[in-house]
Amino acid sequence: MISISILGTGNVAKHLWDTFSKHKEIKVNQVIGRNLDAIAYYRNKTKASSDFKSITDSDIYIIAVSDDAISTVSQFLKDKKGLVIHTSGSAPLNELPSNLRTGVFYPLQTFTKGQPIDFKEVPICLETKVEADGQLLHKLASLISNRVYFVDSEQRKKLHLTAVFANNFSNHMFHIAHEICEKSNLSFDILKPLISKTVKKIETLSPYESQTGPARRTDKGTMQKHIDLLKEENHKEIYRLLSRSIQETYGKEL
Amino acid sequence: MISISILGTGNVAKHLWDTFSKHKEIKVNQVIGRNLDAIAYYRNKTKASSDFKSITDSDIYIIAVSDDAISTVSQFLKDKKGLVIHTSGSAPLNELPSNLRTGVFYPLQTFTKGQPIDFKEVPICLETKVEADGQLLHKLASLISNRVYFVDSEQRKKLHLTAVFANNFSNHMFHIAHEICEKSNLSFDILKPLISKTVKKIETLSPYESQTGPARRTDKGTMQKHIDLLKEENHKEIYRLLSRSIQETYGKEL
Repeated sequence: MISISILGTGNVAKHLWDTFSKHKEIKVNQVIGRNLDAIAYYRNKTKASSDFKSITDSDIYIIAVSDDAISTVSQFLKDKKGLVIHTSGSAPLNELPSNLRTGVFYPLQTFTKGQPIDFKEVPICLETKVEADGQLLHKLASLISNRVYFVDSEQRKKLHLTAVFANNFSNHMFHIAHEICEKSNLSFDILKPLISKTVKKIETLSPYESQTGPARRTDKGTMQKHIDLLKEENHKEIYRLLSRSIQETYGKEL
Repeated sequence: MISISILGTGNVAKHLWDTFSKHKEIKVNQVIGRNLDAIAYYRNKTKASSDFKSITDSDIYIIAVSDDAISTVSQFLKDKKGLVIHTSGSAPLNELPSNLRTGVFYPLQTFTKGQPIDFKEVPICLETKVEADGQLLHKLASLISNRVYFVDSEQRKKLHLTAVFANNFSNHMFHIAHEICEKSNLSFDILKPLISKTVKKIETLSPYESQTGPARRTDKGTMQKHIDLLKEENHKEIYRLLSRSIQETYGKEL
């Protein structure tokens, strides 16, 4: 049995609670957060409080708050003997007090309110100062996920950065496509099989090999027609920059 | 039975041949293309030739060549009575000779050599000058796909443009993520569940609703850290432009 205190009530905290609470080998002792509305969700489920001074003894304290607040919350754990971990992709391990047993438990996934997550497929990136704590954290992570990795602070920063490209920026590309569809009375549904295929392709090919389109084949005529069709200056600028970047990737002259 | 001449030997032509040849109600009379290596593939399968003067009578002539060559190839069909169609997303219907029965058959998918396609899920966008030809084309398209749409030339141009954002540019985002992973000794596989989830989310939410990340929440600290982490000027520029575009989308001050 691993006992846990969850500190924080945002998306990550909530998804972790939902998953942990289903496992017999994990006991969530309490959830603590400043947000009273968010805390209300846990009232009849576990001990829930907005008072960070009420932290009880647990094997692991999970600080699942915004990066800016990690250090502040960790001050309430000064005299704790359990393992203190944060869940941030970009904060380093040493954001936590050096005199404590500390670690990182970074679930690499995009969490949305109200959308359930199957943690089994969520990569969980771990880091600890000492090996014994790594084993404890690995035990916890393996209970909920089949994809557990050890990733140090430098690598994790890079990973968080790549997630912005792989998720946030690709989603923004979908958004621009959606916007243009709406303005042209086209259903965005027509594009969905193409989007699915784009992702299926990179299961077997690298994105480098998968690339197609006018920029890939230096089809200047089509690129110019597309830029002329775009109405927003911002979209033109994105089209130009990404087309140039694709052409540079394949070593074509501009 | 619908009889067909395929004119062209590129990816689209080949994928159409592979699909058509499996259907009893479709008969491919011939495949014609200039590329002798490509034509060799069809030698023992159907009548294959590199001589455009050898075009026989068919119900439908499918011009599946690059946009620049559509007009040239259509000159060989001057005296034909069948329906002459092209498969381009960006060329208008009137790229084909006005004295012929003409149409467009645009499969909205990304075709890669050697990767088989399940046409049932490929949206096929049709356009014809007259309704009777529309019915013929709809019959052909429905034999191979469950997603058949009528889309006029103006809309199709927009659709082709949105496909560049939805497929080509999102794939380039995956490529940049892949590049950074490689340079940091991280397996790109760690990112694959995140990428899958990005696409699954937009089955039920709009991309507007799905957006997460530092730009979405105007987390300037993280954005600056990411820009500092990026080594290539080109990647910095893309990060800045797309983050600005996301912030503008959500009406935040810059």
